[in-house]
Amino acid sequence: MDKEYKELQVSSRLLLGPGPSNVHPRVLKAMATPLIGHLDPEFLQIMNETMELLRWLFRTENQLTIPMSGTGSLGMETCFVNTLEEGDSALICVNGVFGQRMVDNAERCGARVDTVTAPWGEPIDTAEVEKALAQKDYKLLAVVHAETSTGVLQPLEELSRMAKDRGTLFLVDTVTSLGGCPLEVDKTGIDICYSGTQKCLSIPPSLAPVTFSEKAAAVIQKRQAKVQSWYQDLSMIASYWGKERVYHHTAPISSIFALREGLRVIYEEGLEARIQRHKTNAAALWAGVEALGLELLVEEKYRAPSLTTVRIPEGIDDPAVRKALLDRHNIEVGGGLGVLKGKVWRVGLMGENSHANSVFLLLSALGSILNGMGFACSTGEALQEAAKIY
Amino acid sequence: MDKEYKELQVSSRLLLGPGPSNVHPRVLKAMATPLIGHLDPEFLQIMNETMELLRWLFRTENQLTIPMSGTGSLGMETCFVNTLEEGDSALICVNGVFGQRMVDNAERCGARVDTVTAPWGEPIDTAEVEKALAQKDYKLLAVVHAETSTGVLQPLEELSRMAKDRGTLFLVDTVTSLGGCPLEVDKTGIDICYSGTQKCLSIPPSLAPVTFSEKAAAVIQKRQAKVQSWYQDLSMIASYWGKERVYHHTAPISSIFALREGLRVIYEEGLEARIQRHKTNAAALWAGVEALGLELLVEEKYRAPSLTTVRIPEGIDDPAVRKALLDRHNIEVGGGLGVLKGKVWRVGLMGENSHANSVFLLLSALGSILNGMGFACSTGEALQEAAKIY
Repeated sequence: MDKEYKELQVSSRLLLGPGPSNVHPRVLKAMATPLIGHLDPEFLQIMNETMELLRWLFRTENQLTIPMSGTGSLGMETCFVNTLEEGDSALICVNGVFGQRMVDNAERCGARVDTVTAPWGEPIDTAEVEKALAQKDYKLLAVVHAETSTGVLQPLEELSRMAKDRGTLFLVDTVTSLGGCPLEVDKTGIDICYSGTQKCLSIPPSLAPVTFSEKAAAVIQKRQAKVQSWYQDLSMIASYWGKERVYHHTAPISSIFALREGLRVIYEEGLEARIQRHKTNAAALWAGVEALGLELLVEEKYRAPSLTTVRIPEGIDDPAVRKALLDRHNIEVGGGLGVLKGKVWRVGLMGENSHANSVFLLLSALGSILNGMGFACSTGEALQEAAKIY
Repeated sequence: MDKEYKELQVSSRLLLGPGPSNVHPRVLKAMATPLIGHLDPEFLQIMNETMELLRWLFRTENQLTIPMSGTGSLGMETCFVNTLEEGDSALICVNGVFGQRMVDNAERCGARVDTVTAPWGEPIDTAEVEKALAQKDYKLLAVVHAETSTGVLQPLEELSRMAKDRGTLFLVDTVTSLGGCPLEVDKTGIDICYSGTQKCLSIPPSLAPVTFSEKAAAVIQKRQAKVQSWYQDLSMIASYWGKERVYHHTAPISSIFALREGLRVIYEEGLEARIQRHKTNAAALWAGVEALGLELLVEEKYRAPSLTTVRIPEGIDDPAVRKALLDRHNIEVGGGLGVLKGKVWRVGLMGENSHANSVFLLLSALGSILNGMGFACSTGEALQEAAKIY
């Protein structure tokens, strides 16, 4: 083979899709830190601080709060494979791709799964969950907080209460909400929770923070069968992150350097300020997009500030718009997934990218592209409406 | 919480343990590259080049040659969960921790596992494997190429031939051999192979390169049941890395930037030169260590050039020596695992660290520490013996 491989060269993208988001320069710098060993005393200190910061971020005192060594979907699987055993019953709320993915995960554990569904773009009706819970004893109730495929933000309090009333474990996917939407693991009574790093945390994808309540940890401890995944077996991984420091697998050291630094950036901003920032910029985006004459998929009350789904107007060429955004403006937005493919764009304002400049740039670029395609809209008006929010 | 979290600060370690090894500055720089999306056309090109370079490194034409999104142990699990189904029979060679781990993985797939064992520090006796294969129809024969817990390099040719004769899939763990020891996936007839990035490739831990022959890929395609792991289901992951580019999970983008760059460094050096380098530096280490009056665990013929196990002399305090190496000299070496705990040190000369300077530094530091503990040895003589090799 004599092919020449050139130096890595990538364009400077503004990542306004469903993740990854752009990474803070301090986090990129941490990624480039020369390695130390995964059992080095200095690394153990870094692990401890990372766990502390994750607990702070999740708003929990759960001992078992660690980053799993994979992307967000590994976090999902970790939560299911450790909790469910062959024959267990689980009730899963499905109103998008990630609810469906939870079902697939639970079924691969040999669990019997029932679902409560809602149309994509609408929240789960808690009354239906209550009805389902009354009919059967479930080990687990699972729901997605911010559905990345639809932009729906699901209220959690009632669902948590219902689960608690019946002694059912409450599992929540916070991949697209953690660090950008209000989330209170302990106060809300969430037993099991997973997230990713590349959304509202603005850290490169490669780790999946998870947290388990004492109740959930006890369920794991009392399992009959071994966890079907060796790599994700928390009974062993907890010994590496715990006081014993027993070797399990080599931790992704650079990614943990980056996670610690990214959490430090968030810690310095403060969680309340950060969440308010996400709310404000989302409101500006919504105002601007509607002023362009576009419709939003989700009713305002249930809109996730981190991810907005915009209906693609009749007759507008979806891939052509996204290609123009990328090629002309270096802006990435996401296409629709599943039944929403070709019907919506997914616009993320996450972490570093939740900023007035993202909003203004996207509105200007989108307005100009749509106008060029014969869709009449006033970019000036859109920018004006957005600006009013600030 | 008002605790202050300081800027990341880590010591400059020379990583001569069983991995991670020190990372090339070009790879660290690639880690710090600002992100692009995981479906960006530019990223798809990077994925293609990464697959090409992996095929070049594994010496294979296997289409299904990709990095899994986790550390080496995830690679192991991926190979087992995709290949084995409930009730399948597997024959696994065990002469160290990682052979044992393969058994654990295969059993978690519901497979019936038989083992051929050898004392830790010795290779597997191929005659015993032949005997076992004659007694039963196995779907899979699995072996570790370079046992990271013992430093044994297992000859593969005969085992491969035996497996092929019986239509049994041949699976090899190359975590500690790929890029540092001779390995020819296609020529040797290996069907399934996994590795890690943090050993002889000198890339941060977070990816697990895997490769599957057409025969193995066909077995996966004909599965009766779904793969028990959603995250590791190759039937879906292959569609993301293949022409279809179907979204599965968010790829660890920065890690793939780093993998491509690390592979490019290896490509520029050339595989033959690299493997010769590992051989030469290992020979120098062995000569020097023996000249210090220490014994090596493994017979020379079966020693992995990437990882050397040194017997700890009677009366020498294992943790104290390693602590002195780390604290005084910033050198990490590994302790023993499993039955070899407290009995050996594990010294890696992997990737970037397979260098005369690693050998000289370790011999000088170790000689001085051992002398200080009352173990009479001549560092000068050790250095002289090592130097003769070059």
